[in-house]
Amino acid sequence: MTIKTKYHVNFYDTDLMGVSHHSNYIRWFEIGRVEFLRSIGIDLNEMMNDGILFPITKVDAQYHSPSHFDEIIEIETTATALTKAKMEFEYKVIRDEKILVTGHTQNVFTNKETGKIIRLPEKYYNLLRVVECKSEK
Amino acid sequence: MTIKTKYHVNFYDTDLMGVSHHSNYIRWFEIGRVEFLRSIGIDLNEMMNDGILFPITKVDAQYHSPSHFDEIIEIETTATALTKAKMEFEYKVIRDEKILVTGHTQNVFTNKETGKIIRLPEKYYNLLRVVECKSEK
Amino acid sequence: MTIKTKYHVNFYDTDLMGVSHHSNYIRWFEIGRVEFLRSIGIDLNEMMNDGILFPITKVDAQYHSPSHFDEIIEIETTATALTKAKMEFEYKVIRDEKILVTGHTQNVFTNKETGKIIRLPEKYYNLLRVVECKSEK
Amino acid sequence: MTIKTKYHVNFYDTDLMGVSHHSNYIRWFEIGRVEFLRSIGIDLNEMMNDGILFPITKVDAQYHSPSHFDEIIEIETTATALTKAKMEFEYKVIRDEKILVTGHTQNVFTNKETGKIIRLPEKYYNLLRVVECKSEK
Repeated sequence: MTIKTKYHVNFYDTDLMGVSHHSNYIRWFEIGRVEFLRSIGIDLNEMMNDGILFPITKVDAQYHSPSHFDEIIEIETTATALTKAKMEFEYKVIRDEKILVTGHTQNVFTNKETGKIIRLPEKYYNLLRVVECKSEK
Repeated sequence: MTIKTKYHVNFYDTDLMGVSHHSNYIRWFEIGRVEFLRSIGIDLNEMMNDGILFPITKVDAQYHSPSHFDEIIEIETTATALTKAKMEFEYKVIRDEKILVTGHTQNVFTNKETGKIIRLPEKYYNLLRVVECKSEK
Repeated sequence: MTIKTKYHVNFYDTDLMGVSHHSNYIRWFEIGRVEFLRSIGIDLNEMMNDGILFPITKVDAQYHSPSHFDEIIEIETTATALTKAKMEFEYKVIRDEKILVTGHTQNVFTNKETGKIIRLPEKYYNLLRVVECKSEK
Repeated sequence: MTIKTKYHVNFYDTDLMGVSHHSNYIRWFEIGRVEFLRSIGIDLNEMMNDGILFPITKVDAQYHSPSHFDEIIEIETTATALTKAKMEFEYKVIRDEKILVTGHTQNVFTNKETGKIIRLPEKYYNLLRVVECKSEK
């Protein structure tokens, strides 16, 4: 399953090399991830109210081509693993069918009070388990 | 009372006009304000643990001259009002004795649970009351 | 003339007080301003290619109520002065008809090479002069 | 060769999970990298004035433990490859001898006008070639 989210590159996203600063793609991956979860019925505010946090444990990005102020880009977010222990996503940031940046994230789940790693309760896992994940070679 | 804090302008602070993005000065005012409060014994983590938040209610900035990547600037933070109801500060961002940006902030105090405006407890006010504030004409 | 722009508050826009960090509204004013100019035919990339920059000289914001992660807010951008020497805008950030933040910006025009203040060429001024500006009392 | 840079975590670096937002470490890697290059005599402003850009092509980060507002962290930046074609660095973000985040970046060099990949001129390579790089297994 893949979710596509449009983003209009802002002036404040740029740096003095005249392109979107590379750190912003990590933030845009988050936009895609939140939109993906929203689309399958997972509301992160509700999850936090239930005492569950979802800290990022790994991120990587490969930058193939830059984006610029005022361009409309698309974040393609694909689930690669959704278990009770972790979520893994793959991202493609695309402009006019050209892949600009690719990347991955992994996050786990923790108890908001103790900070300890937990397994996701059925309430949320039932929403994740039905999602088809891209198999990784 | 005035506190001076140095800041080294980062690459990620710049935009495609080749200067520090104007929104960053609002963040740098925060650096100065936190440093000012720390210097008089106020620890904002402790204040939050005591259930007190300190939301910004007003900010203004006047931009006279830009700063650039790799420049060392100084944030001068001066208290102009420190009461049980609010804190007001004045800022000057300076490079080599030249004033680049000036500004002000006002914040109030709220109860972390209810969000309602509160008056600052004596524990903290006793630290604020002894600070000499710049009188505003 | 007023332009309305929707914005979906991101996780990365929040701070540990649980609300959108106050500096972000200054960035969101920029989103509204860019959208306003785009709507009257002014492309800021073209302006920069023509050697014209548009640095912010003044900004102010009044914070009435916070916004939170995953809320959809609207930035209302209204022109209050559009001359050859400067642009002035007024902003209202609104959620469900409630005004969260109000503010203003002023920017001038400078020569990209010299950094000196310039008057806007007719090419651009002709697009600005026809816009009805809100008169300020 | 390893360069250590201190960073004081700001309020604006945090998110509503109460920790530094994960995207900030990518920015802090940049602080370490710029400081490393400065320490061996490479001034990135001079490089840009010479028409050379240094876009990031790869980044990864592994998050072991969070940092919080007002903590002082240290960015340890180690060169792993410095050639005419690319720079590769390894990072450790540390607080009180505890490794919070590790990561890597790779950047290439491009011609500012054409955007094409170039090999670094001797002027700069002579400063890089003498640096001892950590061999990677």
